[in-house]
Amino acid sequence: MLGSTLKKVRATVPLVHNITNYVTVNDVANALLACGGSPIMSDEPEDVEDITTICPGLNINIGTLNKSSIEGMLRAGRQASKLHHTILLDPVGAGASKLRTETALKLMDEVSFTAIRGNISEIKTLALGSGSTKGVDADIADAVTDDTLDSSINFVKDFAKRTGAIIAVTGAIDLVSDGEKCYVIRNGRPEMSRITGTGCQLSAVTTAFLVANPDNLLEAAAAAVCTMGLAGEIGWSRMQEGDGNSTYRNRIIDAIFNMDAKTLDEGAKYEIR
Amino acid sequence: MLGSTLKKVRATVPLVHNITNYVTVNDVANALLACGGSPIMSDEPEDVEDITTICPGLNINIGTLNKSSIEGMLRAGRQASKLHHTILLDPVGAGASKLRTETALKLMDEVSFTAIRGNISEIKTLALGSGSTKGVDADIADAVTDDTLDSSINFVKDFAKRTGAIIAVTGAIDLVSDGEKCYVIRNGRPEMSRITGTGCQLSAVTTAFLVANPDNLLEAAAAAVCTMGLAGEIGWSRMQEGDGNSTYRNRIIDAIFNMDAKTLDEGAKYEIR
Amino acid sequence: MLGSTLKKVRATVPLVHNITNYVTVNDVANALLACGGSPIMSDEPEDVEDITTICPGLNINIGTLNKSSIEGMLRAGRQASKLHHTILLDPVGAGASKLRTETALKLMDEVSFTAIRGNISEIKTLALGSGSTKGVDADIADAVTDDTLDSSINFVKDFAKRTGAIIAVTGAIDLVSDGEKCYVIRNGRPEMSRITGTGCQLSAVTTAFLVANPDNLLEAAAAAVCTMGLAGEIGWSRMQEGDGNSTYRNRIIDAIFNMDAKTLDEGAKYEIR
Repeated sequence: MLGSTLKKVRATVPLVHNITNYVTVNDVANALLACGGSPIMSDEPEDVEDITTICPGLNINIGTLNKSSIEGMLRAGRQASKLHHTILLDPVGAGASKLRTETALKLMDEVSFTAIRGNISEIKTLALGSGSTKGVDADIADAVTDDTLDSSINFVKDFAKRTGAIIAVTGAIDLVSDGEKCYVIRNGRPEMSRITGTGCQLSAVTTAFLVANPDNLLEAAAAAVCTMGLAGEIGWSRMQEGDGNSTYRNRIIDAIFNMDAKTLDEGAKYEIR
Repeated sequence: MLGSTLKKVRATVPLVHNITNYVTVNDVANALLACGGSPIMSDEPEDVEDITTICPGLNINIGTLNKSSIEGMLRAGRQASKLHHTILLDPVGAGASKLRTETALKLMDEVSFTAIRGNISEIKTLALGSGSTKGVDADIADAVTDDTLDSSINFVKDFAKRTGAIIAVTGAIDLVSDGEKCYVIRNGRPEMSRITGTGCQLSAVTTAFLVANPDNLLEAAAAAVCTMGLAGEIGWSRMQEGDGNSTYRNRIIDAIFNMDAKTLDEGAKYEIR
Repeated sequence: MLGSTLKKVRATVPLVHNITNYVTVNDVANALLACGGSPIMSDEPEDVEDITTICPGLNINIGTLNKSSIEGMLRAGRQASKLHHTILLDPVGAGASKLRTETALKLMDEVSFTAIRGNISEIKTLALGSGSTKGVDADIADAVTDDTLDSSINFVKDFAKRTGAIIAVTGAIDLVSDGEKCYVIRNGRPEMSRITGTGCQLSAVTTAFLVANPDNLLEAAAAAVCTMGLAGEIGWSRMQEGDGNSTYRNRIIDAIFNMDAKTLDEGAKYEIR
């Protein structure tokens, strides 16, 4: 059951090193604390090797990359790979610029990622070497819908096999695969796209779940995705007249904070294909 | 009517590239999403040209400028100028340091700004080449009051004429001019100054309004300023016992999220001079 | 009474220059505004001397240091020292990496700090030249408890004497000393550790209190620590069913905003040793 993977996060308080964008970094830290993890941020190339050495998890998010932080991502990623740490890539905006696409691909070459999480446009960019990413949001032409579900599942499974990483493609329907099985997840609310950073938060939370469940990576990643989506549903149910996206942001993180194994198991909506 | 300009933002979801400070960037992203726009952030010189190419709007805010981001502002600004995109300058802290003043002036030389928004001290610095900015807040000696209103309107009109840009000076009384007409706006709450970032949010929101209303720039900028001030009033009206500036911040963004054309038209307090 | 030091912050609105991490910077700005101060952020080496010159207070936080911001910290620190400004050091993560430890020690060599605030692991690292910091949180082996209170007080007094700075060690029990006296403070809630940035906020708030109370530094620092802890208690008392750490963050800053001298004097829990 997915709930047991959440219990392990709470029991082990995984320390996660985040090299992440400055837009959503505060929410990333609070979401990590909410799920039971512990965040530390560092991107200076001369600092990251020491920091990542003491952290069992590393979350690399290229959202506001710069030359110095790219070097930090590479150094941290190599060191974490050497130490067999859990490493996740969030290729924010891959496909939207040459630098982002090339950085993501270079990281995939040099770092042993445990998981890669992005929207469908970003993941397609990594898989196909090109994309039509519209800014940091998925292109509508790429969307995973019931009509495209079978081919999307095959695509995600194939990319997971090829990379050896857990692949999580999130959107209206979320797909999480290790190459053999694929969780098709239908938690979440469309209004989550009116808040910045739910994807970034999910990447950090997923890293914590993976660290805490080394023998059960696929289920852990799926549990993280369900936790985020379910928190979006619970947060939305608590919205009152006059509340908007800023309050919704708080209520989602609050719902992660209050999530327990029973709520997760009862609220997770998925099938395994 | 101003409300129709908001409708156009909601209908077109303008993508806005922000090169902005790391203090208020999360609120800037959520305010953009709240008004109906879509944010992307990038300041790395080697990334900004690709990113700004796909964004009809560019919002340059010098709040925590550094050598790399200044280069990013210049490259993005030149590229966006070449593509005739909508470009806004928020000269945070111009007058408070040589680097900020010089950077703002250099940007004005090299970039075709559609609009410039700041407090009176910052705008005076740009207009006169010197200023008495007290940190990032306006100097009280500069304040736009009923006593100084006529001369302030003339000053703003002149600067708009000289620069060819819409000039928005915000404070207790807001002035928005294209050189011919000047909106004198009296929305807002004094308590907004106890929150960081309402100015930065307004600059991003204004960029989205301008992008969505290319044939109606002055009215669009005035509508953005009224939206922010009115959101400050609505947010304040929802404050409860024990609430303070952090909750107020959320309630203002929530009020932007829930703003509609009718509320804006009924709540906007302005005269045209 | 501690409350009078808060009144002086509100009466003088101290401008505080912050060179701080991008994780918690927005909360730092809002906490400063909440207590009655005024924030400005700048870390670019070519900008910081001008900015710090106009600010009576400087708050240096090494949380997401990089090569450029380290140079900014040194230049700002030297300039502020020359001008006899109030300067505070928050050595985030000292002991967790070589770069952080060395940067903190170098800053202590070159800058005349009025105060240093950190968790016990960070402060021990500075005092002893080594540490066992677990990420950015204190190592449990170092914790200040009733069992270790006497030796901890002696340690803090000694370090304050040696450095000539007010030392504030915060945790479950907070210790604030000028080398002669030591405030032992028992405000706060354990749940504050589930929010990112309460320590960073406290450092900025402490800087404002110190600036506003130059003749009463020890009491001012103790008042700032009590204000933060008491705000944590008041914020917690306002939590409702379903609220979590994100809402708690807002309520704490709100409680600082609404703090008054009487509430502080009645709620502060301390003894002087």
